Amino acid sequence: VSSSLRLLSVGLGPIGLAAAELALAKRSVALVGAVDVDPGKQGLDLAVLLGRPGAVGIEVEGELAAAIERHRPDAALLCTSSFLPDVHESLLLLAAAGVDVVTPCEEMLVPDFQHPDLAAAIDRVALAGGATVVGTGVNPGFVLDLLPIVASGACRVVRRVLGRRVVDAATRREPLQRKVGAGLEPAEFEARVRGGRMGHQGMRESVALIDRALGFGLDSITQSVHPVLAERELSTRFLEVRRGQVAGVHNVGTGRRGGETVVELDLQMYVGAVNPRDEIELEGDPTLKWTLEGGVPGDIATAAILVNTLARVAEATPGLKTILDLPPARRVG
Amino acid sequence: VSSSLRLLSVGLGPIGLAAAELALAKRSVALVGAVDVDPGKQGLDLAVLLGRPGAVGIEVEGELAAAIERHRPDAALLCTSSFLPDVHESLLLLAAAGVDVVTPCEEMLVPDFQHPDLAAAIDRVALAGGATVVGTGVNPGFVLDLLPIVASGACRVVRRVLGRRVVDAATRREPLQRKVGAGLEPAEFEARVRGGRMGHQGMRESVALIDRALGFGLDSITQSVHPVLAERELSTRFLEVRRGQVAGVHNVGTGRRGGETVVELDLQMYVGAVNPRDEIELEGDPTLKWTLEGGVPGDIATAAILVNTLARVAEATPGLKTILDLPPARRVG
Repeated sequence: VSSSLRLLSVGLGPIGLAAAELALAKRSVALVGAVDVDPGKQGLDLAVLLGRPGAVGIEVEGELAAAIERHRPDAALLCTSSFLPDVHESLLLLAAAGVDVVTPCEEMLVPDFQHPDLAAAIDRVALAGGATVVGTGVNPGFVLDLLPIVASGACRVVRRVLGRRVVDAATRREPLQRKVGAGLEPAEFEARVRGGRMGHQGMRESVALIDRALGFGLDSITQSVHPVLAERELSTRFLEVRRGQVAGVHNVGTGRRGGETVVELDLQMYVGAVNPRDEIELEGDPTLKWTLEGGVPGDIATAAILVNTLARVAEATPGLKTILDLPPARRVG
Repeated sequence: VSSSLRLLSVGLGPIGLAAAELALAKRSVALVGAVDVDPGKQGLDLAVLLGRPGAVGIEVEGELAAAIERHRPDAALLCTSSFLPDVHESLLLLAAAGVDVVTPCEEMLVPDFQHPDLAAAIDRVALAGGATVVGTGVNPGFVLDLLPIVASGACRVVRRVLGRRVVDAATRREPLQRKVGAGLEPAEFEARVRGGRMGHQGMRESVALIDRALGFGLDSITQSVHPVLAERELSTRFLEVRRGQVAGVHNVGTGRRGGETVVELDLQMYVGAVNPRDEIELEGDPTLKWTLEGGVPGDIATAAILVNTLARVAEATPGLKTILDLPPARRVG
């Protein structure tokens, strides 16, 4: 369809593939190309990676610049890393070419929180190139931050934001089970935490987005990472956890002002979690408190938010944005 | 404060006064004038109507045009009627003078749904005057429509939107208890329904906003109004309801496509309602379902949304908008 948005899919891990799959189903989007750094994926038809029969007619490429030149996309989904320094070069290439970018890179939710210089550079290039760049996702980007921010619109006063997300990792894909540390010995988990390789990315960005939206003026934004230990033997389709081993991770993102905790976001992702759910409480006037049964399923919903955000980005003025700058993404056909 | 937004409050009923009270507490807003058609209010200091001791230094005026001329406001809250034809002249006056308008007028949530010609005229005048005009509120505007629309951003597919709001009218102000029919005989209630003077305004607008946001392409949008009858004697601070009399109202807004119900919004507001709450279910992929305990309190939250939306309108391009066109309102200081 000539009026649909020409989309380039960059990064074909689980999230990138789920988003590409969804993009193929949308009338409003025409997937025109796919890029991944993995030589094992290059040259394959995208259908192979999607586990679809037949071909979709899109061959995975390795060179982003060449793909931009060849396909002249309107927008790209950039699903390559959780860390801004890792996506920075690709972002600049895309933005300089006038290609809008939507990315689940966790640090891109509030890009200038950890990387003000890189963020400023991206903004300059995006403005010059006429591209809009935004980071989004489910967590961070939706459950523990955007929803309470939107709900705060109904509040005269918000004194505190409390969020709790409980995910049963047994229902999730294997990489996520490994990522939360399921099956590790506690000592190994702690070693990985010290190495900065454990815990959910983006907890601090969620707190920072809330701070920015609600003007709390937080003094400090921190996160803690602890293991959840198995109290009994657990097993999933992919792995076994013995009693006393790690079942998963407990992350808390905290925002403080004047010694008081103003934002506390509590994330538990572990095998065997009971009563999975998303709970939010805005303490204020009025106090608003809700529970989302079962919780928003992360992978499906992240793919959906990425694709649904494309329409918002297409309408927006150029530059590096946050989701606070855009009308809310909604399900598009 | 010179950098704060100069606000004119137009319509000093319960909602207008609650919003004015809140505006007085915000650093980002400077309330500069207040207008009401009621001669009994004109000439009074706003403090009298707010039930505050002392004076706030704002004398209630009767003539909107003169107030615009005198105060040169940046924005106005227009809280005079639920019906677009009733607010139309005031809207044009404000928009022509370049004054942004936020209004809880229920029909203004989707102005061209019932009044396409009036909406087009407002848009033309707003564009020419450089003003942004938008309708918002809690119901319609938030609980049963904006929140599910925002949540749909996390869905690959949405097949159906179901909402239920249960309000215990006993906890609300007297005009609301009277409006829902508490204490009426069933025959009188039905007569008022036939006269179009009963039931919550804006149910169809909520359905229409969802339809527009999610592209359902509904064939029909209807609402029903029925009484909830008291099964036992009830009393509130303001009135008595005998067994068999009307305790309140049950409104259902329904959107159908091809004979199928795609949107159903169920609102029950009655004295003695058990388990007041707001429940939403998006049937789709994923299905998302949440319950907001106690429900969003209507009056407080409407005032909050009106004032919190001012910042969004100040940033927006001119014209007649819906809340779908703006970044979400969030609590502002």
